[in-house]
Amino acid sequence: MVSPAIRVAPSAANRALSLLRTVQYTHPPNCPCHKNPNHHHNHQQTPSLLNHVKRRMSTPVDRSREKEYAFEMAASSIRFGPGATKEVGMDFTNLGAKRVCIVTDSNVAKLDAMKQAVEGLTREGIEFTIFDKVRTEPKDSSIKEAIAFAKPYNPDAFLAVGGGSVIDTAKLMNLYTVFPEADFLDFVNAPLGKGLPVDRPLRPLVAVPTTAGTGSETTGTAIFDLVSKKAKTGIAHRNLKPTLGICDPLNTRTMPSAVHAASGLDVLCHSLESWTAIPYNERTPRPTNPINRPAYQGANPISDIFSLAALRATVKYLPRAVRDPDDHEAQSEMLLAATLAGVGFGNAGVHLCHGMSYPISSQNPGYKHAGYEVDHPIIPHGVSVAVTAPAVFRFTAASNPDRHLAAAEAFGVDITNVKRESAGEVLGAAIAEFLVTLGDQPRGLKDLGFKAADLEGLVDGTIPQQRVLMLAPSLSKELEAERGELRNLLEQSLDY
Amino acid sequence: MVSPAIRVAPSAANRALSLLRTVQYTHPPNCPCHKNPNHHHNHQQTPSLLNHVKRRMSTPVDRSREKEYAFEMAASSIRFGPGATKEVGMDFTNLGAKRVCIVTDSNVAKLDAMKQAVEGLTREGIEFTIFDKVRTEPKDSSIKEAIAFAKPYNPDAFLAVGGGSVIDTAKLMNLYTVFPEADFLDFVNAPLGKGLPVDRPLRPLVAVPTTAGTGSETTGTAIFDLVSKKAKTGIAHRNLKPTLGICDPLNTRTMPSAVHAASGLDVLCHSLESWTAIPYNERTPRPTNPINRPAYQGANPISDIFSLAALRATVKYLPRAVRDPDDHEAQSEMLLAATLAGVGFGNAGVHLCHGMSYPISSQNPGYKHAGYEVDHPIIPHGVSVAVTAPAVFRFTAASNPDRHLAAAEAFGVDITNVKRESAGEVLGAAIAEFLVTLGDQPRGLKDLGFKAADLEGLVDGTIPQQRVLMLAPSLSKELEAERGELRNLLEQSLDY
Repeated sequence: MVSPAIRVAPSAANRALSLLRTVQYTHPPNCPCHKNPNHHHNHQQTPSLLNHVKRRMSTPVDRSREKEYAFEMAASSIRFGPGATKEVGMDFTNLGAKRVCIVTDSNVAKLDAMKQAVEGLTREGIEFTIFDKVRTEPKDSSIKEAIAFAKPYNPDAFLAVGGGSVIDTAKLMNLYTVFPEADFLDFVNAPLGKGLPVDRPLRPLVAVPTTAGTGSETTGTAIFDLVSKKAKTGIAHRNLKPTLGICDPLNTRTMPSAVHAASGLDVLCHSLESWTAIPYNERTPRPTNPINRPAYQGANPISDIFSLAALRATVKYLPRAVRDPDDHEAQSEMLLAATLAGVGFGNAGVHLCHGMSYPISSQNPGYKHAGYEVDHPIIPHGVSVAVTAPAVFRFTAASNPDRHLAAAEAFGVDITNVKRESAGEVLGAAIAEFLVTLGDQPRGLKDLGFKAADLEGLVDGTIPQQRVLMLAPSLSKELEAERGELRNLLEQSLDY
Repeated sequence: MVSPAIRVAPSAANRALSLLRTVQYTHPPNCPCHKNPNHHHNHQQTPSLLNHVKRRMSTPVDRSREKEYAFEMAASSIRFGPGATKEVGMDFTNLGAKRVCIVTDSNVAKLDAMKQAVEGLTREGIEFTIFDKVRTEPKDSSIKEAIAFAKPYNPDAFLAVGGGSVIDTAKLMNLYTVFPEADFLDFVNAPLGKGLPVDRPLRPLVAVPTTAGTGSETTGTAIFDLVSKKAKTGIAHRNLKPTLGICDPLNTRTMPSAVHAASGLDVLCHSLESWTAIPYNERTPRPTNPINRPAYQGANPISDIFSLAALRATVKYLPRAVRDPDDHEAQSEMLLAATLAGVGFGNAGVHLCHGMSYPISSQNPGYKHAGYEVDHPIIPHGVSVAVTAPAVFRFTAASNPDRHLAAAEAFGVDITNVKRESAGEVLGAAIAEFLVTLGDQPRGLKDLGFKAADLEGLVDGTIPQQRVLMLAPSLSKELEAERGELRNLLEQSLDY
C-alpha cells in the first residue's frame, strides 16, 4: 500500500494547479511523452516536443504539478424495474450471504419498500437484523452509533433501504466493520481526516433507494456532518460503492410533492455541476498509484454522457413529477435520472452549488420548507443546492461557453443565435425560470432568511469544501480571490 | 441456488414469445399489477385492470409467458488514458493478488502493451506466469488447452493483454479455475450447453485491450467455436465480466489500417444492433431469479445511451482512424467508442448481423481479406458482421421506425422530411454508403465468394444462434418463416 506520506496535500495541489493554469496553453495538452514518459513514439509536433524537453531539462520533475492523464469509471450494478425490490432476498442468496444487516430509518421502516425487503429475505431463510435509527442528514455521532450496532453483529452483507442518508450510513457501517481497528478519521476526506484509500474489498451492499435524488446507490461517496469541525464532509472512494442498486419506481411513489421537487433539484445540480466541472486532465496532481485517483476526478467523456442525459430527463420530467402525484411515468423517469446523474457526478464530481449548500443548510436562520413535516427548521439539501445555481452557472460559463450553451439548450433555449459570451446569462436565466416555474421554491437566499451580514459566515463554511471546490471552473486558487468570488456568488444569490 | 430444472428452455421461450406478441397490444404494457402481482396500488385504468383480472381468472399463470419487467446494467470498471497500462502492477497489489496468470497471444506477446504489463508486475514484485498460446477466433479445444494451463498454476488473479480472443479466453480460464469440477458444457449457452448461471464470484481479471472492437473488456461474454456442434457459441453471464478494463490508446496504435477498419465495423454493428434490439420489457420469460436475467436482455434506457453515443463516435472517427495511421485522436476515440458499445451491447445484446456473421466466417469459401497477414483464408469478424448490415436494418426498421431514423441521423442523414415508412430504406442506404466510403470492404457476400447456392447453408448455420436471434425485431418466431426471412436477408446481402 502507498504510504500516506507521499500523498499530496490539497493545499499544495491547489497551489500547483494555480501555477499550472498559467502555463496550460504553452504546452501541448495531448503530448503523449508528457503523459507517459515511458513511451517515446514518433512525434509530429517537433516544436512542442522541444518546449517540452527544454522544460524537463530546466526544472526538476514536480509530481504535484503533473496533470492527470487517465480517468476511471466505476458504478454499481443497477437493476431498474417496478417491483424489483422483492428480488432482493434471492440476490443475497446468490451472493452467498447468510447474515444481513438491514439499514433504514424510522419513516422508511413503515413503508412498503421495507416490507418487500423483509419478506424477500424471510422467504430465502436469511438471518437478518434491522438498524432503523439512521439520522436524516447524518452526523459523525449518528454514523458512529450505526457502526457500533453493526460491528458486533458482524453481518456478511448489508441492505440499505431509504434515501441518501440511509445508503450513506450503510456504506460506513460496511467500511468500519471491514476495518474494525481503523480510527474514524482515517478515511474521512483530507484535510479534515486522513483521506486514506479503501484498500480492502468491502462486504456486499445492496441499496434500495426510496427517493429520486442522491444517486447514492451508484456512488462511492458518503456525506455527514463532522460536528467538532463544524463541517459537512464525508468519505469518498470508489471501493465504497454498493454492489447493486435496486431502483424500483414503486418505492418513490410515497414521496410527497415537496420531496419530489427538492430531491429532483439535487439531480438537476448533480448533472449541471458534473457536466461543467473542470476536465479530468486539468486536475492535479496525477496520482502515483491508481488507488489514489479520486472518484471526483473532473468531467470525462463517459461521465459527460450520463450527466447530459440526466439533465435532459430532469428538465422534462421533474415538473410533471412535482405537479401530478399520479404521473408514475414521470416519477419513474426521475428515479432513472437520479441514478444516471449519480453515475455522472460519482465519477466526475460536483462543485460550487454543492460546496455552498453545506453551510447554507447548516447555518439555516430558521427557514422551514413547505411540505416537509418535521418539527424543526429545514432547508432540504436539494433546495440549498439549487438556490445558488443561477449565479453559479453565470459565473462558470466563461470556462467553457459551449458546454454551458449545451446545458441551456437542454432547458429548451434556442441557442442558434446566442453568442458564446452570453452563455452564462442565458443558462442562469434558464435555471432561474425553471425554478420559478417548478413552484414553491425560495427565490434566493433572502427567502431562506439570510441577510447580507450572513454571507461572510457562509463563505467561511464553504472554504473547507476543497474536495469539490477544486473541481470548480473559473474559481481562483488564491485564497482571498476565492473568498471574494464565493462572496459575490452568494450575494448574487440573495434574490433572483 | 436455483435448480436448472426450473429454467425455461429457449425453444419454449420462443413459442411463448410468439404467442405473447400476438396479444401484446391488448394488455397495457405498463400495468404495474401485471408487472408485480405483489403490489396492488391505486389504479386509474379500470378497463385495463378489468382485462387483466379477467385474464388472470381465466388462465392459469404461465411464467414462461410473462414479460420481463426489469433490466440490469453491469459493466466492468473502465480506466481510460494513454499510458495507463503501466499502472497494472499497482492494481494487482491493490487487489491483494500475489500470483497472476497473464494471458496473451504470440503476436501481442511482442508488443509494447505486454512489455508495460510485465514491467508493471515485476516492479511490484508480483509472481506471474504467461500463457501466450491464445488462438485467434478460439475453439473449444484451444479454450480447454488454456484452462488446462491455468488450473494447476491456480493464480489468484488474471491479466488479459490482447484483443477479444485473448480477453474471452482469459474469462474462461478464470471461470473453470473457480469451478474446477464443472463440465465444460455446464456454462455454455443453451441449448448447445446447459447455460448454468455463474453463481460464485470469480477471481479478479484485468483486461487490457489492444484492439478497438470487441468491447470484451466490459462484457460478461466469451465467444468460441464449439467444433463438435459446428457452431459458434459461447458463455455469457455478467459475473464473467472483468474487474477492470484498462483502455490505453497507446496500445491500439499498432493495429494495421485493415484491422482498424474491421474492428471498427464490429463497433458499428454492436451499437446499431443493441440500439435496435427488442426492448427488454418485450423479452420473455421473466426470470424467476435475478441471477437468470440474461446479460443480453434487450434494449433498455441505459444501454441506449451507450449505444447511440458509440454509433455517433464510430461514424465520426472510424473513417479518420482508417485513413490516417497518425490520427491518434481518432484512434483514441475509436477505443472509447468500442468500450461504450461494449457496455451497450453487453447489457442489451446484438441480433441479426452477429447471428449471421458466425456461419459467414466459418463457411468462408476461400476469401482472404486484404491487409490481414495470415497464411489462410479469413473473413475478419467485423467484415462478416457488417456485410449484412444494409439488408438487416432495412428489414428491422418496421419494428421501430423512430429508432432507425435516429440511427440514420447519426450517419448524417437529414431526416426532417423522411417518412417513417422509409426509415429502413434510408438507414440501409446510409450504412451501405458508409461501408463503400470506408474503402476496401466487400460489397456483399458475392465479393466474399458466396453464391446463391450457399445461402441455405448460411441459414442452417444461423438458426442455432437463438440467443441473439431472440432479440431480433421483426423476425418471425415460427421456424419456417424465420428461415425464409433469414434467406431473404442473405440474398439481399449478396451485393449492395
